[in-house]
Amino acid sequence: MLALGIDPGTLKLGWGLVRRSGNRLTHVDHGVIRLDGKRPLSERLPVIERELDRIIAEHSPEIGSVESLFFHKDAQAAAKLGHARGVVLLILARAGLRIAEYAPAKVKRTVAGGGQADKRQVALMIRALLALPETPPSDAADALALAVTHLRLGPLEERLAEQGVSPRLLASLGRRRRSRVPRPSWS
Amino acid sequence: MLALGIDPGTLKLGWGLVRRSGNRLTHVDHGVIRLDGKRPLSERLPVIERELDRIIAEHSPEIGSVESLFFHKDAQAAAKLGHARGVVLLILARAGLRIAEYAPAKVKRTVAGGGQADKRQVALMIRALLALPETPPSDAADALALAVTHLRLGPLEERLAEQGVSPRLLASLGRRRRSRVPRPSWS
Repeated sequence: MLALGIDPGTLKLGWGLVRRSGNRLTHVDHGVIRLDGKRPLSERLPVIERELDRIIAEHSPEIGSVESLFFHKDAQAAAKLGHARGVVLLILARAGLRIAEYAPAKVKRTVAGGGQADKRQVALMIRALLALPETPPSDAADALALAVTHLRLGPLEERLAEQGVSPRLLASLGRRRRSRVPRPSWS
Repeated sequence: MLALGIDPGTLKLGWGLVRRSGNRLTHVDHGVIRLDGKRPLSERLPVIERELDRIIAEHSPEIGSVESLFFHKDAQAAAKLGHARGVVLLILARAGLRIAEYAPAKVKRTVAGGGQADKRQVALMIRALLALPETPPSDAADALALAVTHLRLGPLEERLAEQGVSPRLLASLGRRRRSRVPRPSWS
């Protein structure tokens, strides 16, 4: 399974592709889309669209992993970030990717062992985890961390299917589990 | 000149098309794109894209008029609205429309004579201004008001060109105006 992690922004947008085969995570590619802060937002958003469409067409990821919408103190900053995030979600949905969202603290706990890890620690852990020759820029590292988080925590069904457990067995497990739940007496 | 006003939202997105010929404003069409609040944002944004692309393809407006990014008290709401607004700006820019942005108070002053007008007053003024047979829904009325605001306040050049003043004359006026401005002595 190939996951595309994205760290949206209106100046720098980080992306990272990680593949999972069985229990092994492999780095595929990463980068930062740099946007010109002197241009109006309406000119920067089409750049995001063009670049992400290109990355998706080249690699055909199945999952898009994005930071969940979190509470931001600064409403103006939240609105701006929302513009980039909205365009990202549009592109992922349009390309048929499943979309997973993870809170920043969950990403940090998953890749760096603690919800308070700083950007530098996340980047170093990602470098070590994915055996990268050098530390990626922090926006790309955050994106790779989002992809890794999904590949580690994503739905059980997806991870079992990756390990060769057949959908039929999964379905039968599901049925057995459900049959043990007593029906409420009023149904 | 045909202006498309848009009032972005993640539940209801109002749009309205107004044409200006000389000094006359004519209503062309309006509507509200209704989005299912029970679906995730990533499923609602492609609906916005599809509907706006359809409206633009059908009418070929030259100008998109959108509320400017204003300070919002609630950061979460601002971020959500940002998602819709980001997708709207992307679509307008991609389709080659010029984009104008107006603050809500400016729109209200322009169409209703006062920056404090409520939604109902704006809708009634728009109905009167555009001689509509009935009062449009408030989201569409806000969108029509944005289109009207641009057609009344938009760049002088655009309005003069509409009235048949040639670009060459405009350019020569511009040169004359500029030549009267003394150069700073340190230049």
